[in-house]
Amino acid sequence: MSDSFRIGVLGHGTVGSAFARLLEDRAGAIEALTGRRPEVGGVLTRSRGDAAEIIEGSDLIVEVLGGTEPARELVLSALSAGKHVVTANKQLLSRHGDELWAAARESGAQLRFEAAVGGVVPVIRVLSESLAGAHVERVHGIVNGTTNFILTRMAETGAPYADALAEAQRLGFAEADPTDDVSGADAAAKMAILARLAFDTPVSFDEVGYEGIEQVTADDLAYAASLGLSLKLIGTAERVPHPDGGEGISVRVHPAFLYGGHPLASCGGSFNAVTIESPAITEITISGPGAGGSQTASAVLGDVVAAMQPRRPTPEPSQRLPIVADVTAAYYLHVEVDDRPGVLAELAQVLGLQAISVKSFVQEGQGSQAQLSMVLHPVLESRLTAAIELIDGLEPVRSRPRAIRVIEEQF
Amino acid sequence: MSDSFRIGVLGHGTVGSAFARLLEDRAGAIEALTGRRPEVGGVLTRSRGDAAEIIEGSDLIVEVLGGTEPARELVLSALSAGKHVVTANKQLLSRHGDELWAAARESGAQLRFEAAVGGVVPVIRVLSESLAGAHVERVHGIVNGTTNFILTRMAETGAPYADALAEAQRLGFAEADPTDDVSGADAAAKMAILARLAFDTPVSFDEVGYEGIEQVTADDLAYAASLGLSLKLIGTAERVPHPDGGEGISVRVHPAFLYGGHPLASCGGSFNAVTIESPAITEITISGPGAGGSQTASAVLGDVVAAMQPRRPTPEPSQRLPIVADVTAAYYLHVEVDDRPGVLAELAQVLGLQAISVKSFVQEGQGSQAQLSMVLHPVLESRLTAAIELIDGLEPVRSRPRAIRVIEEQF
Repeated sequence: MSDSFRIGVLGHGTVGSAFARLLEDRAGAIEALTGRRPEVGGVLTRSRGDAAEIIEGSDLIVEVLGGTEPARELVLSALSAGKHVVTANKQLLSRHGDELWAAARESGAQLRFEAAVGGVVPVIRVLSESLAGAHVERVHGIVNGTTNFILTRMAETGAPYADALAEAQRLGFAEADPTDDVSGADAAAKMAILARLAFDTPVSFDEVGYEGIEQVTADDLAYAASLGLSLKLIGTAERVPHPDGGEGISVRVHPAFLYGGHPLASCGGSFNAVTIESPAITEITISGPGAGGSQTASAVLGDVVAAMQPRRPTPEPSQRLPIVADVTAAYYLHVEVDDRPGVLAELAQVLGLQAISVKSFVQEGQGSQAQLSMVLHPVLESRLTAAIELIDGLEPVRSRPRAIRVIEEQF
Repeated sequence: MSDSFRIGVLGHGTVGSAFARLLEDRAGAIEALTGRRPEVGGVLTRSRGDAAEIIEGSDLIVEVLGGTEPARELVLSALSAGKHVVTANKQLLSRHGDELWAAARESGAQLRFEAAVGGVVPVIRVLSESLAGAHVERVHGIVNGTTNFILTRMAETGAPYADALAEAQRLGFAEADPTDDVSGADAAAKMAILARLAFDTPVSFDEVGYEGIEQVTADDLAYAASLGLSLKLIGTAERVPHPDGGEGISVRVHPAFLYGGHPLASCGGSFNAVTIESPAITEITISGPGAGGSQTASAVLGDVVAAMQPRRPTPEPSQRLPIVADVTAAYYLHVEVDDRPGVLAELAQVLGLQAISVKSFVQEGQGSQAQLSMVLHPVLESRLTAAIELIDGLEPVRSRPRAIRVIEEQF
């Protein structure tokens, strides 16, 4: 009879109960692998359990409470007591990660968080272990299953945003209050965590710019299809030159068009996928279902098994890279105008003023109006914003121009 | 000044020299991460270097000789001396893996081999660590970049096999003697390694059945496209019921049609991709470039960094699952017949005799001949083989029927 390995579970929602079931199912296999039999030693629910007692009596704490408090306080207390912690809590890590990692380093306990990003997609392990010695240049990710489901349904059915959201809510892919997902905030928290690992530099949620999908229209998706593009909510973390010289990073979340050949373009439904680009490897893409209870529990279990085998704690970041706010991107630009002589010349002049050049251009007429759809070569965001203001002020322009970033193949 | 970590490199081909360059480039970052500065302590080439001396003077050995001897003898000698070994050698591992893993267990040294399978795709780490506690049901992989490039070009251009192979050779995607790749042997060696990890049971190269792509025609790819399928060389490792009761596994490599929605269907060119299916996670797909010198070197480096951090050695397999040779699969079947009354009835009778049912069916006429293309519901391979023999013997059948497996979405 081998020693038991006692796991305290803080939180008893969908993930907590799925984890307890999965652990029971796999305990024998894990014992064969690690030499110790894992068992749930205590569960903290809203109404029952004493957190301090559970932490005291456990070898490892699984934190699936969500939110920042009391999760932060309990995780800090567990780490300080030298207990390993496995968490699925992206809010906590993206807002208080450095405090928690420091506590883990100090006591030598492990803090693991595969389940916090990308559902079952093991991007944390690949970034922090397989690519530990690599120079990562860029990470692109579809890291929110709710928004990917909504955009996929809009593209498939032509339904407006509100209808696709309602369908997602009916099927359990979106919460009753979907704000955290559809605003891009959930994806931004995950990208902060990925950027920290990719570039070995502190990044907090507050430093991630994000836009959601609430403004995406069925028309945007139809235009995308006609141009061979697909529209996704993309998180990007990349190295960019800093305006003051030296190197900086940009971390952001926004809707973006992907060319058909991009490895994320085929990621549909509620799936997540992440592409990691690095000169020596070119790129790695990992995809799988976004977080459901059973998937998240499986990612938590992988971390528990890893923690049962010895490993050194998270090293302190060796970099302090500045965040760059104004970065270049290619854009799709859609403008509705009165179809009369001189309109194109006015538009071209405005773009030229901002040194913006057009890669491809389509005009479709509708009576006395015309719809101009174009893809622009990469341009600084600030220049595009200036151009949009100028275009919006032109007399023949009928409605505010729509701009969506386009992500092109790098290779 | 931190301690140095001395790496002996056995072999000095493309991968060996790319590794030395990459290591020099990343030495500073690795030192920051691990606390030790990695350096190449000795290189064994065909004409220079003393293997025993290099092993003696190194903390870790990188084996990139390829082939089974003298690689086997040198790796055994290094492991027995307690030196960690990182290898990219799939032949060695798929034929002598158990002997090597046993030597590693005995001395406590690590034997790492991410670079042996899937180019930069970190499938070894995901299977052996992220999914260490999971019950893996099935692994499907495109694990040979040469054959994937050839099939992709055939599909894109309609070129025959010989022309696509010649193009692959011209571009450096195929060797002058391509036998190991196009026969499926290379993929079979990799699938033996993946199956061992997925099911925690010994699997050797000799137990993997394989077919290559030499017999694939441009017509097969055209039919595939017309049915919305794509044709890939697929390695499969899956749990299947054993005919004598209990559980067995099947490990095999063969061309197979994939439905458009399958996660491997979009893996084109010389890329590799692997899908791992497990009930709790549904599936994870990882994709990236197949092995080039720089990509393989990067996978080797990831293993070197991992070995510089403490970890327990490979556990002994806890399972002894039998290999099942005759397994069920869906098939695409193509038959050319004289177009006259009664032909379909004869064919249907033969299929019925073997309890084979048809899922979809297309007939195209060409003068007095007809081409029958059908997709069959899953059937035991032995029954399909029997049916093909019978169909081939029917009087109106003009040429040997062609059968190719079809992999359907499980979910």
